[in-house]
Amino acid sequence: MTELIIKPIGIVKNKANKEVLKYSNKDLKLDLDAVLDQGSDLIRSKILINEEYKECLDGIEDFSHIIVFFWTHKIPDKARQIKKVHPAGMKKMPIKGIFATRSPVRPNPICKTTVKLIERKGEILIVEGLDAIDNTPIIDIKPHIPFYDSPLNIKLADWMYDLMEELKKLTENSDLEESSNPYSINIRSHPCIRPNQQKNAP
Amino acid sequence: MTELIIKPIGIVKNKANKEVLKYSNKDLKLDLDAVLDQGSDLIRSKILINEEYKECLDGIEDFSHIIVFFWTHKIPDKARQIKKVHPAGMKKMPIKGIFATRSPVRPNPICKTTVKLIERKGEILIVEGLDAIDNTPIIDIKPHIPFYDSPLNIKLADWMYDLMEELKKLTENSDLEESSNPYSINIRSHPCIRPNQQKNAP
Repeated sequence: MTELIIKPIGIVKNKANKEVLKYSNKDLKLDLDAVLDQGSDLIRSKILINEEYKECLDGIEDFSHIIVFFWTHKIPDKARQIKKVHPAGMKKMPIKGIFATRSPVRPNPICKTTVKLIERKGEILIVEGLDAIDNTPIIDIKPHIPFYDSPLNIKLADWMYDLMEELKKLTENSDLEESSNPYSINIRSHPCIRPNQQKNAP
Repeated sequence: MTELIIKPIGIVKNKANKEVLKYSNKDLKLDLDAVLDQGSDLIRSKILINEEYKECLDGIEDFSHIIVFFWTHKIPDKARQIKKVHPAGMKKMPIKGIFATRSPVRPNPICKTTVKLIERKGEILIVEGLDAIDNTPIIDIKPHIPFYDSPLNIKLADWMYDLMEELKKLTENSDLEESSNPYSINIRSHPCIRPNQQKNAP
């Protein structure tokens, strides 16, 4: 199959400059300092859309949430070869195929994050909850539509529930405020609840 | 900004061979026959992952829903220049910027659809709800995680609620069975309810 060409349509501007997950020794490595640094920047980022694509944004301001597609530009090209990782670089997690994880290291290093759209000012989008670092190339923007994007009756792999709890614990043990914790429900709003706990919930 | 290179990681196999939305005269054109044809194929598609990426799937079988990223390969290159369209090619809809729509015609023709994962057999994924036609290149697969992908308290643009109703009406007026209707809640599971109707709901 032939190669496909993507042209960046914009760039991220925020104060986060350390990657949370790096490629290291054919696996991922979690940088906890970067997670904590990123906390407050997760709250607000700017997305600058290139002048030529400015009018492509017309109407986006009427949506509360948008899907941001970005290219994890810090990942070295050779990292695109690896097939399996420890999720979030945690050795206690079972090693899994890249497509079963949200690893930023993947054959095509495309990430998607659904964020709250705070404001549009011309070619600038102010968003909340973007986990991309400063200068990350943006490759697409779409409105979030529950009909297409939020199916119901979800079941995750057991290790993924463990991982979400682990990440929350790690950040709760820091002196990060709850409102700046990227794994707090304040920012992401939708909890991942194990099916057996959903049943027992009031 | 430099160009970014994507390598397809797999391909779609199903019986849908007509595009639902085509590029036509600097806008979109809806092919209702294609929507109706696609109905039963939306129920089940195969995704064949290339042999070299097969082990990237290990662990995916433990998730109920996956996000499929694909490249709308039938869109001509010149179409990537257009900035605004009538959503779903419907002239009664207000013209909007591409990034405020889910148009398959866009600067980088990447689509994402969240689908139900029915089964994994080696390098084959059987999925329900994929709106890609036969032979569409697949560029990424990720597990769907509500924490990242399903924010709450969503507000859409008014025209988007209108459009969803319009598409549902169009397909209901056909002789398509409810279970094969791509706009039926049976397949997508999550309704788009206007905020004022949410409040009034019992």
